[in-house]
Amino acid sequence: MREVFQQELGDVQSRLVELAKLVEVAITRATEAFGNSDINLAEQVIEDDVYIDELAISLDELSIQILARQQPVARDLRTVVGALRMSSSLERMGDLADHIAQLTRYRFPEKAIAKGLRGTFKKMGEKDVEAIQKLVLLLETQNLELIDEIRDIDDVVDALHLRVFDKVLGETWKGDVSDTVDATLASRYHERFTDHAVSIAKKVKYLATGDWAPVD
Amino acid sequence: MREVFQQELGDVQSRLVELAKLVEVAITRATEAFGNSDINLAEQVIEDDVYIDELAISLDELSIQILARQQPVARDLRTVVGALRMSSSLERMGDLADHIAQLTRYRFPEKAIAKGLRGTFKKMGEKDVEAIQKLVLLLETQNLELIDEIRDIDDVVDALHLRVFDKVLGETWKGDVSDTVDATLASRYHERFTDHAVSIAKKVKYLATGDWAPVD
Repeated sequence: MREVFQQELGDVQSRLVELAKLVEVAITRATEAFGNSDINLAEQVIEDDVYIDELAISLDELSIQILARQQPVARDLRTVVGALRMSSSLERMGDLADHIAQLTRYRFPEKAIAKGLRGTFKKMGEKDVEAIQKLVLLLETQNLELIDEIRDIDDVVDALHLRVFDKVLGETWKGDVSDTVDATLASRYHERFTDHAVSIAKKVKYLATGDWAPVD
Repeated sequence: MREVFQQELGDVQSRLVELAKLVEVAITRATEAFGNSDINLAEQVIEDDVYIDELAISLDELSIQILARQQPVARDLRTVVGALRMSSSLERMGDLADHIAQLTRYRFPEKAIAKGLRGTFKKMGEKDVEAIQKLVLLLETQNLELIDEIRDIDDVVDALHLRVFDKVLGETWKGDVSDTVDATLASRYHERFTDHAVSIAKKVKYLATGDWAPVD
């Protein structure tokens, strides 16, 4: 019984990492598709979002089964509760990658982003990818030093988000209404992505230490 | 011990309803402030968001304590797990009300929304309020018929969200860039609000029936 339990706990942990890795693939492809107007890559991100959703569901089901059958306590309980809380944020990060891919598809064959903002969005995309890479590492290693690094990336993305608004509201902005709408939405999606990364990173801290700080 | 347990479960249930009621107050005030450029009401929503966050945290802490100490099973387990999952969506709905209030404050003394869109946003605001009212009722009564009503409201809000884009991308749109950005963000906030309501409603179904359908 004890052995089954430990194996199930291991499964929770590995499915969580697997889920984060699927999100890493999704946002890496979505930002590449977005920058290069790559419609095929965008379609792939949109199609693959279902796997992220399914894995999140299977992780939730497993977690609830463990709670019901094994009634874990202490650190084991935190692992299971942590997974339950993190899966929905990871699922949501997958949705945001999907939204960025959808903007790409919607605007194809045009570029989704007007010229003056491409550098800013390239940077935002890179930072989103970096955030999930560090998050995968954090989930794998529980090296809590990574939490501050993820926070720092989020700060950079927040600053880039403000820069997008400065740009579109500034006098040199030459985009049309549609460019403005797309830039506003795309910036919001990129910014929310790292918000979720920070929120998950905080939950890893809880998982490791029992120090519960769940405000996103 | 059993009595304490039942009381704690009752507490989980009542804190969840209380949290939903705070969100109801927040979105009611936020949409009123937004429509009338009422800066005082907007400030109040922004200030009061902290109470929503605090209540969500206390609900999470209680739920985790119950899991650890009482090791609930079956329906009791679902109540606790359901509360853990719903609290973060409710907290997020509070954030969205706060964002709508912040748009109001940012634009004051101007109206946050350009003339041609005020009717659409008035309707969206009313529908958001209606969604959370039905959600409060659903949490209180577990009358599952309300779930479809909440879905229907979400469909209406999705249609209004599309109407906003049709309007700003249409030939008659006279708003400036700032109007376009505000309309895009405000529409997104309103639309996400009812998405969360649907997501929570599905979790109530799980709570009542054990039928787990957690994809948002």
